[in-house]
Amino acid sequence: MLRAMNIKPIDWAGDSLNILDQSKLPAEEVFLNLQTYEEVELAIREMRVRGAPAIGVTAAYGMALAAQKLGNSTKKRSLEALEDVAGLLVLSRPTAVNLKWSLDRIMNIAIRLDNMKNLYESILAEARKIHKETELSDIIISESGASLIDSQSSILTHCNTGALATGGFGTALGVIRYAWNQGKIEKVVATETRPWLQGSRLTVWELTKWGVPVTLIVDSAAGYLMSIGEIQYVIVGADRIAPNGDFANKIGTCSLAIIASVYDIPFYVAAPTSSIDRTISSGADIPIEKRRPEEMAWDASSWPKDYNTKALNLSFDITPSKYVKSIITEKGIARPPYKKSIKGLFQHD
Amino acid sequence: MLRAMNIKPIDWAGDSLNILDQSKLPAEEVFLNLQTYEEVELAIREMRVRGAPAIGVTAAYGMALAAQKLGNSTKKRSLEALEDVAGLLVLSRPTAVNLKWSLDRIMNIAIRLDNMKNLYESILAEARKIHKETELSDIIISESGASLIDSQSSILTHCNTGALATGGFGTALGVIRYAWNQGKIEKVVATETRPWLQGSRLTVWELTKWGVPVTLIVDSAAGYLMSIGEIQYVIVGADRIAPNGDFANKIGTCSLAIIASVYDIPFYVAAPTSSIDRTISSGADIPIEKRRPEEMAWDASSWPKDYNTKALNLSFDITPSKYVKSIITEKGIARPPYKKSIKGLFQHD
Repeated sequence: MLRAMNIKPIDWAGDSLNILDQSKLPAEEVFLNLQTYEEVELAIREMRVRGAPAIGVTAAYGMALAAQKLGNSTKKRSLEALEDVAGLLVLSRPTAVNLKWSLDRIMNIAIRLDNMKNLYESILAEARKIHKETELSDIIISESGASLIDSQSSILTHCNTGALATGGFGTALGVIRYAWNQGKIEKVVATETRPWLQGSRLTVWELTKWGVPVTLIVDSAAGYLMSIGEIQYVIVGADRIAPNGDFANKIGTCSLAIIASVYDIPFYVAAPTSSIDRTISSGADIPIEKRRPEEMAWDASSWPKDYNTKALNLSFDITPSKYVKSIITEKGIARPPYKKSIKGLFQHD
Repeated sequence: MLRAMNIKPIDWAGDSLNILDQSKLPAEEVFLNLQTYEEVELAIREMRVRGAPAIGVTAAYGMALAAQKLGNSTKKRSLEALEDVAGLLVLSRPTAVNLKWSLDRIMNIAIRLDNMKNLYESILAEARKIHKETELSDIIISESGASLIDSQSSILTHCNTGALATGGFGTALGVIRYAWNQGKIEKVVATETRPWLQGSRLTVWELTKWGVPVTLIVDSAAGYLMSIGEIQYVIVGADRIAPNGDFANKIGTCSLAIIASVYDIPFYVAAPTSSIDRTISSGADIPIEKRRPEEMAWDASSWPKDYNTKALNLSFDITPSKYVKSIITEKGIARPPYKKSIKGLFQHD
């Protein structure tokens, strides 16, 4: 039941990294073989791999690829070189904090290492550990989240938070998949998720692979379906969660949360604790990535050039914690008041 | 200041009808010459002309084209033939009630006519009158609506409610244009309006022609912008208004209205009284058009066939009247309680 998908979206291949090119789905299932950290940085920036936990895992492997290419050198110089790479990778997507969390873990391994001869192996081992932990954390989140879902539910999700987004079982979509396996789900409603169409291109593709019935809608239809009683739960992932429970997620999340609260529909966030940024205080501190306006083009050939100055392409928005019923993590379920409950998640660290 | 646009989206050309093919905008400004009611029906169904008032006007001209082709016949047979045409045209788009309102007006002219020799001229005169009245009504609505807008406002609109949607000055977009001319508008935020992209393809095109600065966003970004205080007003059109103030409009309208009410942002509807359906009692009585799932394809060539059974393409939604601050019509501004105020609009009829 909890088998990973046959397709591995992030797959270490001995000495290089294979990733499923998500920009080509669902038309083509193409893998990219990444051999350098520069290729990893580009793949993240161009969203060939995306999803907060997945880019954390990918960046960790990117550090291994960087270490692989370092010649014999002093510890000081090696660390400087790795710091430069981490500094580049962390900028590839500014909103998801998993990237920084993952790079920090890798750097800590390097800093503590005595023998630089083991640098590559040690970093690779830590990258594999991050990947494994993400897989495990996904399953805990999925099982735990599914316990919050009643039977015969219609559940709405936004963007893609499945295996593709984590390299494991998925977070919000993992919860849905787990609850589906328990026979609790009557229908999944997936928003197409403009402009990049993660919902229609990735979530529908994944749900179809798993045999879960899905209804695809335009993003703006979600509110109407909630208003007429068609939706029992809304569940989404997170790219960065503040200690007060505010969180950044795919543009459109904030709208869904507001409307769910008006209609008393439970609104859940499912994310690993690596998505929690304990260095900030609220959602206002989270940088929101703006991407190229051309991403909003309906057709590259007929998108008028002057639209590039007119379109505002925010990749994420911030949802205030007051609209969130629970935050489901691998360390437990946080509930309001979030300052206390989120702090509590880390009490045994 | 109130000049019509240089381009006339609906233009009677002596003995046939020219319409600007809206499905080709903004890449191409192509006119279609329609010579039969069948061509008119197809143009409406395929959304080459769209917008509730515009399809009302177009259908009226379609009846003129039908009458033009009727041979000498008895009044009974002529009326039967026209009834058949009206029956076909009214089905071309099921939600906007302006279509029925316009066809009823044409049929009433035909029914009252004594000399069938004047049938074509009489119907054409009524079609022209409907068109002229729509233009006039647009200007009254625009001026009246603009009086509700304070200076230095950011105003959000959805879909297209401009000259293209009415054949005149526009309704909700007419209000924006009027308020812009008065120097009250700092910024217009236009949603792209999936799946058909009336916002990005038509509204941005119109606003650009008028020199009004516009920011184009994906539909799902509207709620976030409202939540952070970036929007002072939301104004939309309507395809059908029930006597209790519930109304049908482009899918996504309901979400905007709910969120606006949460943030105390005035939410206005601008529409002619021909959009009010006095034969129903509430929004629940309005049929919602479902269109082909393929309209949601991001790219016809890569839209998997099985998505046609998975996608739900609702063209409209119903917004409960409790979220509406005012309904701006050519007969006055209706405010809650709507049963009374909407009835009041018709008291001098």
